[in-house]
Amino acid sequence: MTESPPIRFGVIGCAEIARKVSRAISLSPNASLHAVGSRSLEKAKAFAIANGFPEGAKVYASYEEVLDDPNVDAVYMPLPTSLHVRWAVSAAKKGKHVLLEKPVALSALEFDEIVEACESSGVQLMDGTMWMHHPRTAAIKEFLSDTQRFGQLKSIHTIFTFGADPDFLENDIRVKPDLDALGSLGDEGWYCVRAILFANNYELPKTVLASREPVLNKAGVILSCGASLFWEDGRVATLYCSFLSNLTMDITAVGTKGTLHVHDFIIPYEEKKASFYAASESGFDDLVTRWGSEPSKHVIENDLPQEALMVSEFSRLVAEIKFNKSKPEKKWPTISRKTQLILDAVKASIDRGFEPIQIKE
Amino acid sequence: MTESPPIRFGVIGCAEIARKVSRAISLSPNASLHAVGSRSLEKAKAFAIANGFPEGAKVYASYEEVLDDPNVDAVYMPLPTSLHVRWAVSAAKKGKHVLLEKPVALSALEFDEIVEACESSGVQLMDGTMWMHHPRTAAIKEFLSDTQRFGQLKSIHTIFTFGADPDFLENDIRVKPDLDALGSLGDEGWYCVRAILFANNYELPKTVLASREPVLNKAGVILSCGASLFWEDGRVATLYCSFLSNLTMDITAVGTKGTLHVHDFIIPYEEKKASFYAASESGFDDLVTRWGSEPSKHVIENDLPQEALMVSEFSRLVAEIKFNKSKPEKKWPTISRKTQLILDAVKASIDRGFEPIQIKE
Repeated sequence: MTESPPIRFGVIGCAEIARKVSRAISLSPNASLHAVGSRSLEKAKAFAIANGFPEGAKVYASYEEVLDDPNVDAVYMPLPTSLHVRWAVSAAKKGKHVLLEKPVALSALEFDEIVEACESSGVQLMDGTMWMHHPRTAAIKEFLSDTQRFGQLKSIHTIFTFGADPDFLENDIRVKPDLDALGSLGDEGWYCVRAILFANNYELPKTVLASREPVLNKAGVILSCGASLFWEDGRVATLYCSFLSNLTMDITAVGTKGTLHVHDFIIPYEEKKASFYAASESGFDDLVTRWGSEPSKHVIENDLPQEALMVSEFSRLVAEIKFNKSKPEKKWPTISRKTQLILDAVKASIDRGFEPIQIKE
Repeated sequence: MTESPPIRFGVIGCAEIARKVSRAISLSPNASLHAVGSRSLEKAKAFAIANGFPEGAKVYASYEEVLDDPNVDAVYMPLPTSLHVRWAVSAAKKGKHVLLEKPVALSALEFDEIVEACESSGVQLMDGTMWMHHPRTAAIKEFLSDTQRFGQLKSIHTIFTFGADPDFLENDIRVKPDLDALGSLGDEGWYCVRAILFANNYELPKTVLASREPVLNKAGVILSCGASLFWEDGRVATLYCSFLSNLTMDITAVGTKGTLHVHDFIIPYEEKKASFYAASESGFDDLVTRWGSEPSKHVIENDLPQEALMVSEFSRLVAEIKFNKSKPEKKWPTISRKTQLILDAVKASIDRGFEPIQIKE
């Protein structure tokens, strides 16, 4: 990494998740907290004080002012999904790099507007899928890519659920049709879809089919749903997401020669290390009364929490553009778009009475 | 347990699995190996010698002779599924209690013939689902039934796969349409369906839908498939079974307040103990950077291997009938039938181009 000055962040909106990411910006050696904007100046001030913004940090009573601050290099955008197009496009047009919370948009079509604006302005776009940046994720990838230990992927099963409290189910933006209209699918299903695509080297499935009996609230927002994804060669994937069940974060991937289990893939049990279980060529003793060997536990340590690693990687790309005239890294918006495309298909399948949806890139 | 003499078993057929169950009969304090029958006397003799049959054990060159032996109380029947109706009905008619390998039949309709014959003769019928008899299973049940620790079941996801070798895929009875015509669904899916029903207190789902893209061999036998089950109140279940993937045996059950993980539910990693993972009211620290607590590991020890516990329980019921004039326990054939009914529905859904199948008891 070059010894360039840190990338200066403006935080747009004071959502809960912004606390965690502000800390991550502080922890990240190549990033700094420069400004925060809220529709309320009081709220912005209180947020800056509570979240370790430095003395000279700017506090604004609007999102516009953050975008107009010439010293802001990049914005972190934890706004409700329905506001993403407007504010991400504005940010890009003003030359700000964009770290965008997930789901990135309400549809892939909408997301394309953001991508276009970022490409036109030559700014980096990355979504806030933190677990992608944990070193465990790279270790898992290594296992899944190992033709000897894992073989070919045959099926992957993912779950992300948590038990929302009554206040959440009544008032959170994630149950409001005008804010995060994709509900549990957008908030939780996003991670499941990403894990599925990650394990499939981002090869899109041929067909997506939503499960019957999703749970919707009165406003029609998804509180719980599932889906199956199918590839032409017989690979299958399932996802299940819900606001109505105990916290669960599972990846189970089964290959011809190996099996992967991860139980905390989105947020590891601990901040400074994370594990996964890998089994290879599992079998039984002669009488089939016990296994020949148990899956092995792999522990990966990380010096910085995964959200700080995300900020660091984003800032590294931004610094490359700012100081070394590099082009933005297209990998990140590309996988954001594929993830969104599958969410769109699950939603469409539900809306059309559980019809299978063919995926076209 | 009364101090009655052991129940004398006749083993019909010398399948691989019969080795394990013969050992289980030897290990079981209330059971004894009395006879074995095969179409080949040589094979029966070799089997008896290799599998610890006592000196005076009978060796027969036909299944009929086992059924005609007045000293045989019960038969263990590891025959190909297509032969179950014929031989289980014959055994029942001759007053023999029947321990029947799974899948119990090629359809619920066929199984009903076996049930009827056993009921008419007043003999006990039980299927060979060994894990039902492991004390871990009772401990899991306790967790799933705990309204404080687990709450209400919302979803359950099950996997049973193993990597069959080329010889198996060419020659095993489980890939032959005239022997075990249900293939992977009958052999592996059976356990997944049983686990799903077990967790749902044997309440049948409303709808069963097979997953797209099952893998069939040239003869049309299922090598790999999946399905989803739906209850009216929004509960869902998934199963995935395959002869084409690494050995995996998973139950993941998610309730409103708790989560269960079992990775070796059918055959535990070790013979004399088995574990499961339970999480309750899982949550995060304030900044959502790590979990408040990790799932806890529960280890259950068993004095006898689960297959011997199965034989013991079956023999206890038989002894109750034989010595105490009890009636056969209907619980076992009832859950066998329900399991078979769901297999039938998965098969029907595949055959009808992935139509949802309504379940009628």
